[in-house]
Amino acid sequence: MSTNLESIYLTLEEAIQALPYPDQPGLLYDPVKYTLADPGKRIRSKLTLLGAVLTGGDPHKALPAAIAIELLHNFTLIHDDIMDNADTRRGKMTVYRKWGVPTAILSGDILFGMSYQQLNVYAEKGWLTGTEFVALLSTFQQAVTAVCEGQAMDIEFEGNDVVPLPTYIEMISKKTAALLSAALELGGITSKASLEMRSHLHAMGTAAGIAFQIQDDLMDVVADPSSFGKKVGGDIREGKKTWLMIRALESADEPDATMLKQICTSKSADDIQINQVIRLYENLGILQDAQKEIERYYSEAMNHLQFFNNASHYDYTRTFFDALLNRSS
Amino acid sequence: MSTNLESIYLTLEEAIQALPYPDQPGLLYDPVKYTLADPGKRIRSKLTLLGAVLTGGDPHKALPAAIAIELLHNFTLIHDDIMDNADTRRGKMTVYRKWGVPTAILSGDILFGMSYQQLNVYAEKGWLTGTEFVALLSTFQQAVTAVCEGQAMDIEFEGNDVVPLPTYIEMISKKTAALLSAALELGGITSKASLEMRSHLHAMGTAAGIAFQIQDDLMDVVADPSSFGKKVGGDIREGKKTWLMIRALESADEPDATMLKQICTSKSADDIQINQVIRLYENLGILQDAQKEIERYYSEAMNHLQFFNNASHYDYTRTFFDALLNRSS
Repeated sequence: MSTNLESIYLTLEEAIQALPYPDQPGLLYDPVKYTLADPGKRIRSKLTLLGAVLTGGDPHKALPAAIAIELLHNFTLIHDDIMDNADTRRGKMTVYRKWGVPTAILSGDILFGMSYQQLNVYAEKGWLTGTEFVALLSTFQQAVTAVCEGQAMDIEFEGNDVVPLPTYIEMISKKTAALLSAALELGGITSKASLEMRSHLHAMGTAAGIAFQIQDDLMDVVADPSSFGKKVGGDIREGKKTWLMIRALESADEPDATMLKQICTSKSADDIQINQVIRLYENLGILQDAQKEIERYYSEAMNHLQFFNNASHYDYTRTFFDALLNRSS
Repeated sequence: MSTNLESIYLTLEEAIQALPYPDQPGLLYDPVKYTLADPGKRIRSKLTLLGAVLTGGDPHKALPAAIAIELLHNFTLIHDDIMDNADTRRGKMTVYRKWGVPTAILSGDILFGMSYQQLNVYAEKGWLTGTEFVALLSTFQQAVTAVCEGQAMDIEFEGNDVVPLPTYIEMISKKTAALLSAALELGGITSKASLEMRSHLHAMGTAAGIAFQIQDDLMDVVADPSSFGKKVGGDIREGKKTWLMIRALESADEPDATMLKQICTSKSADDIQINQVIRLYENLGILQDAQKEIERYYSEAMNHLQFFNNASHYDYTRTFFDALLNRSS
């Protein structure tokens, strides 16, 4: 069964690489090809295929939705990299650094448009009823709205001294988790899943996405730099309001909290300051707290997955999420 | 009959102002409200309503498509203003100047998403068959692609010494005219117009759009600054490859061509240089040539309109285009 899905992953990748676009204007399409050439992990599109098989559908019919979600994701990366002044992405220069802001804006825009085009396939081929097609479009659009709102909240946080933890969770639910939950649910919609199934897929994606983001926050300070691909403490240097930083600001005493606020504002902490913050995280027990929180959200996701325990690819999906969250279990 | 349409314009404006969005994040939605608060001329959405009535449809059923095209247009303005470093738009500070690049990118993105949401109404209300709905989506998406391609071509032109006139016409067909032709055709699709009708609407929009853009290029050097709302010669100062500049580069003698190329490259012509360029345009007969070209494309548009000469609002549409092109006739 899993072999089967691996072959569909190949079909997915081939379809992404074979997307038709004109050669001109090169300024528009070269960055698109550059971005899509690197397969990354294709996590979101794989989730769409999993959403389809878990609900008893044909994963081939989930392919256009899987491609749509992948294009949408890559659009958000290109635009986010401009907003974050990011130099590299997946070890390569970002589109914004390589081609400049105008080109990065435009090639993101065209990817956004291309993502919607993929969804047309369902209406063209008559694979879905009118109601199902509307559900597909609405689910996709809700994700678009959520991702934009999440990114806006993230930018707003930069200017805020205090960010309550629930507000942070809302932000990552939108910025990170909404695309994962939409990816899974879209897969369910393409296989005409019931509303109950769709709701479990959606909730699974949300919980897994939150776990995934807190894991990402944690990895910034505990990961082996060689395997993680970026320097430890990058988030601290950039003064980012991560789960760890917000918890530390909440629980540190006055002098430590002042130190943290200064580091967040300066956005230029040196290695000594970064180590100071990491030691503070350790002393306050925040790294363990984060790990517990990841486990809690992970369990929530697995409880929703449990609903599909008799479905094809149930174990496969569990393993997929384990790998996603770097769990050895 | 026209009174009827005027009342639908009001309904359109009310619908745009009443679009539902949450208050938060303000960073995302404040710029959207700011942009849509200014009604501008709503040319594109009015064309959608005209496309519907010319083909015998109910303009009320064209409203969601009209709103979609208006939101799409405003999304392109917000992103274009970043790329063009534009300070003002419709006499107000641009979103990019007022809120910065990240917010301008994001609020453009959300407007883009909102525009697609409007199209869902046709599937939700069952106003169109599956095939008609696919035509609606495809026409919209072709416009999205064209607008991005046109903008990319325009940016590419900045780095080119020579732009052939046909390439310029292709660029404005995409950057400016594609949205007008899609606006008209979408109106036709909402009233279930025949392919022949749709093709005339599309061609009418393309020709009118090209006339409109050359007119805009011409206005830069001949308009009364007080009525046109910007300083004469702004395109020359910015070194833009307009229809006039491209024609002048083609027909000027060696020393004048060198002078023009320098001005295009420097992007900082002073008033004396601007006057020098305008006098050159006059001496080379380029202003009259431009006027003739506008007339030619205008006639082409009117020939396509002629197909609807027995339709409701035929005369009204003619007057609408006359006003658009500042014709007294």
